[in-house]
Amino acid sequence: MFRLPINDSIYLKLMLPKDAEILVSALKENQEQIKQWLIWAVNLPTVDVYKKEIIPTWLQKFANNNGFEAAIFVNDELAGMIGLHYIDWNNKTTEMGYWLGEKFQGKGIMTKTVEKLTDYCFEELELNRIMIRAVDENTKSRGIPIRIGFVEEGITREAQLLHGKYCDLVNYSLLRKDRN
Amino acid sequence: MFRLPINDSIYLKLMLPKDAEILVSALKENQEQIKQWLIWAVNLPTVDVYKKEIIPTWLQKFANNNGFEAAIFVNDELAGMIGLHYIDWNNKTTEMGYWLGEKFQGKGIMTKTVEKLTDYCFEELELNRIMIRAVDENTKSRGIPIRIGFVEEGITREAQLLHGKYCDLVNYSLLRKDRN
Amino acid sequence: MFRLPINDSIYLKLMLPKDAEILVSALKENQEQIKQWLIWAVNLPTVDVYKKEIIPTWLQKFANNNGFEAAIFVNDELAGMIGLHYIDWNNKTTEMGYWLGEKFQGKGIMTKTVEKLTDYCFEELELNRIMIRAVDENTKSRGIPIRIGFVEEGITREAQLLHGKYCDLVNYSLLRKDRN
Amino acid sequence: MFRLPINDSIYLKLMLPKDAEILVSALKENQEQIKQWLIWAVNLPTVDVYKKEIIPTWLQKFANNNGFEAAIFVNDELAGMIGLHYIDWNNKTTEMGYWLGEKFQGKGIMTKTVEKLTDYCFEELELNRIMIRAVDENTKSRGIPIRIGFVEEGITREAQLLHGKYCDLVNYSLLRKDRN
Amino acid sequence: MFRLPINDSIYLKLMLPKDAEILVSALKENQEQIKQWLIWAVNLPTVDVYKKEIIPTWLQKFANNNGFEAAIFVNDELAGMIGLHYIDWNNKTTEMGYWLGEKFQGKGIMTKTVEKLTDYCFEELELNRIMIRAVDENTKSRGIPIRIGFVEEGITREAQLLHGKYCDLVNYSLLRKDRN
Amino acid sequence: MFRLPINDSIYLKLMLPKDAEILVSALKENQEQIKQWLIWAVNLPTVDVYKKEIIPTWLQKFANNNGFEAAIFVNDELAGMIGLHYIDWNNKTTEMGYWLGEKFQGKGIMTKTVEKLTDYCFEELELNRIMIRAVDENTKSRGIPIRIGFVEEGITREAQLLHGKYCDLVNYSLLRKDRN
Repeated sequence: MFRLPINDSIYLKLMLPKDAEILVSALKENQEQIKQWLIWAVNLPTVDVYKKEIIPTWLQKFANNNGFEAAIFVNDELAGMIGLHYIDWNNKTTEMGYWLGEKFQGKGIMTKTVEKLTDYCFEELELNRIMIRAVDENTKSRGIPIRIGFVEEGITREAQLLHGKYCDLVNYSLLRKDRN
Repeated sequence: MFRLPINDSIYLKLMLPKDAEILVSALKENQEQIKQWLIWAVNLPTVDVYKKEIIPTWLQKFANNNGFEAAIFVNDELAGMIGLHYIDWNNKTTEMGYWLGEKFQGKGIMTKTVEKLTDYCFEELELNRIMIRAVDENTKSRGIPIRIGFVEEGITREAQLLHGKYCDLVNYSLLRKDRN
Repeated sequence: MFRLPINDSIYLKLMLPKDAEILVSALKENQEQIKQWLIWAVNLPTVDVYKKEIIPTWLQKFANNNGFEAAIFVNDELAGMIGLHYIDWNNKTTEMGYWLGEKFQGKGIMTKTVEKLTDYCFEELELNRIMIRAVDENTKSRGIPIRIGFVEEGITREAQLLHGKYCDLVNYSLLRKDRN
Repeated sequence: MFRLPINDSIYLKLMLPKDAEILVSALKENQEQIKQWLIWAVNLPTVDVYKKEIIPTWLQKFANNNGFEAAIFVNDELAGMIGLHYIDWNNKTTEMGYWLGEKFQGKGIMTKTVEKLTDYCFEELELNRIMIRAVDENTKSRGIPIRIGFVEEGITREAQLLHGKYCDLVNYSLLRKDRN
Repeated sequence: MFRLPINDSIYLKLMLPKDAEILVSALKENQEQIKQWLIWAVNLPTVDVYKKEIIPTWLQKFANNNGFEAAIFVNDELAGMIGLHYIDWNNKTTEMGYWLGEKFQGKGIMTKTVEKLTDYCFEELELNRIMIRAVDENTKSRGIPIRIGFVEEGITREAQLLHGKYCDLVNYSLLRKDRN
Repeated sequence: MFRLPINDSIYLKLMLPKDAEILVSALKENQEQIKQWLIWAVNLPTVDVYKKEIIPTWLQKFANNNGFEAAIFVNDELAGMIGLHYIDWNNKTTEMGYWLGEKFQGKGIMTKTVEKLTDYCFEELELNRIMIRAVDENTKSRGIPIRIGFVEEGITREAQLLHGKYCDLVNYSLLRKDRN
């Protein structure tokens, strides 16, 4: 119901429990791709778990003013998700994360979405720093912050255990001052 | 940040703690009018109480999937509030409540807003029944459901203690079947 | 253990977990009748659910000073239940609900009980308004408030989903001033 | 509202927040006596603290099925308090505590009350053991269990810090088998 | 990780969830002996229950500053457990409980441990009274407080339901003043 | 009471509420130095806040198996603090933080302590990665991980708001494989 408009065809939507079905359906369609980089996608939770546990947890994060996890809709179709994993109000920083379904890739959708959400973070939320982290080998995901002008800050070595192997994360950030 | 669009100039917005200032400012401007019918407006809570208690409680209601309380923005100015006070998912019913600042009245804004939110209740939330209750003497508020085609169902006698006097509420409802 | 005396042979009793057995036994005996009007009786919860969840929830309501659900005992036999579903202390209103086993019906037991509990609401709890709502077709239940002098206030259309069909509720109320 | 009858003139009553005034009034009248043995009576909490914290805590204990703290009414006047401080359902034991206002003393009221509550513990709650503990020097309090046939089990040395001095407690118990 | 040293070869350790395996293994080895006096040992909880429920509850008790339950390690092997079941900070009292594996018995380990923990209670925690209670027939357990100079205070009759039979507990205590 | 030994003269201690006084005393002595890099030290919380809020929160973190904050004792004097701010059990990573009083600096105490705690993280907790972050200009703090062989991974730009100015953090990490 409640949306954050990105452009004429794209908007973010805070999901309610009733949206569990379409979310799980989109996740299943893209499971092979997503689970490469996001470990929770190896064994997808059921619709019921999304309805009763995961979506309520996301809504709770929003209610706590500590970020959000929202669906990306493209022409009213659920295309992926994007979120602010937390907001550190003391230091005015946040971290963004996202995934996009395969058939929506290669059209600049995620770049546009991250760009617009970045504007919201600086202008509406008055944050000072946005971080994006991606697994070293995940070149598609790394392309997004690079395209928008995020700065590569360094590597976090073996930060994530993925399919039994520790992976390095590459850290990107955009500061308010970077935009002037 | 997250909005429910009503038309080109009107949208509802889920308020975050940082919105407490503009909300209290609008409330103060309209306090004389509001406090006639809504008892909490007699002694307006401070910005701090809105920031730390009331807005978080509203966000919590939304996170619990039990309705919401949202600001009505008209040309990006906070004009009033509207909400679904609760959602009874078992019986698929809800109750709507609202107030509108004086300078925004007489332009059909609230009628348009309630009408659109009514659509959302039936179509997105798939509810079956919407109730609006208004104090007997509050003719302006009673005008809204009448104009949209709500049915007057009866009186709830002395349902509300207002300025030391018990007031009757008039009950209006719209059912899914009323719209066919 | 703790009782509210109605007359020489009738009293209300706050149920403890250990009372789950006799309650479920009474519910089973009257299930056919009760489930016509109260949807939870279609699939009766087990003794264990009453012991560990439902009765503790009722006790919690009492502990929160927000009403109670009590058993009606007639000559030390569990005959039915009655409760104040909530208490709105700001507006000094409450809503009463009840059921009575078939073999106890037709003896004025519920009329007497509601009458006495009504006295308690006005005199001990100092409330101003008591509401009783009953499904339109449930003439037995509607007879109780009528007999005691409650005023019919109107219909709440399709307020309850019962056996797949939306039912209208008839609203009755008694105000402190009605009794003078 | 809810009572446990002791005899024609005495009953126990579960106190609601609204009863805070009469309770504090009785406590003030008897403060000198009570504070000799019960340390919390040295600085009596205010009516507001009883209303919002202490009475809700007592109701919570009852709701948790873990005992209760109730007022003793004699001819509808608040005469004192008695309670089961906890119930150990695994071992079927409890501990009783009480105080009685001075003008009600010397009439067998507390003896009668403890006796009847003892019956309830064995018969309704099906407990096996009831303990009463009293400060060594508090002969009045110690007289109650002695009169009813409780057995003195021993001393708990320096169990209670009272007015800056550690006091011994004398332990009395009554077992189900003691009554045969 | 965090330890309370008793002497060169003995220390107490606050157990973390990961320690569930070695604890259950020690319990199983000594189950026959322990279950004679501690009813929970009749049906030992699984490793998973220790990991997710029991050890977290013990850590919680420590976090609440309300005592602790710790493992006794002898030459880095888990030999038994000892704890302060609660701390009554108002009256400066606590109660100690323990068990020791059979192959560690008869070497003065528990006597040494209780003695040292007693010192901690008086010196670090500044308590005034320590109680130890043991089942009447459990002569081994009763030997510990006797050897250290605890005073026998009396019997708590039928305090514990053990294998379907109520058992008496013998109470021992040590006061600060006993040590001078 | 419970300690993690570092060497003959140094140990870590889980602080209890009663330790608030000595902690605040040490903090006050070193406030000028600490507040340069740790913003909470600008306005030191009172002893009472440490006793009732902060130390309980630290104990809670330990009870949740999510790290700890402990005091460093050198010859039984509180010299500073060290902690694991969180433990990410899924990815087997943690982050370490610390401060040391001025009069204890320059003696290798913190290097020794971090080194030993590092061993515990890898060996007892079986973690895979430890991170230490320090403000760019804080050369003393940065010296510790360098001396122990931590690897500098990069900068987190403007990660911390310190005295009205955003500061860069330098990230150091040690992996299990770095130690072979």
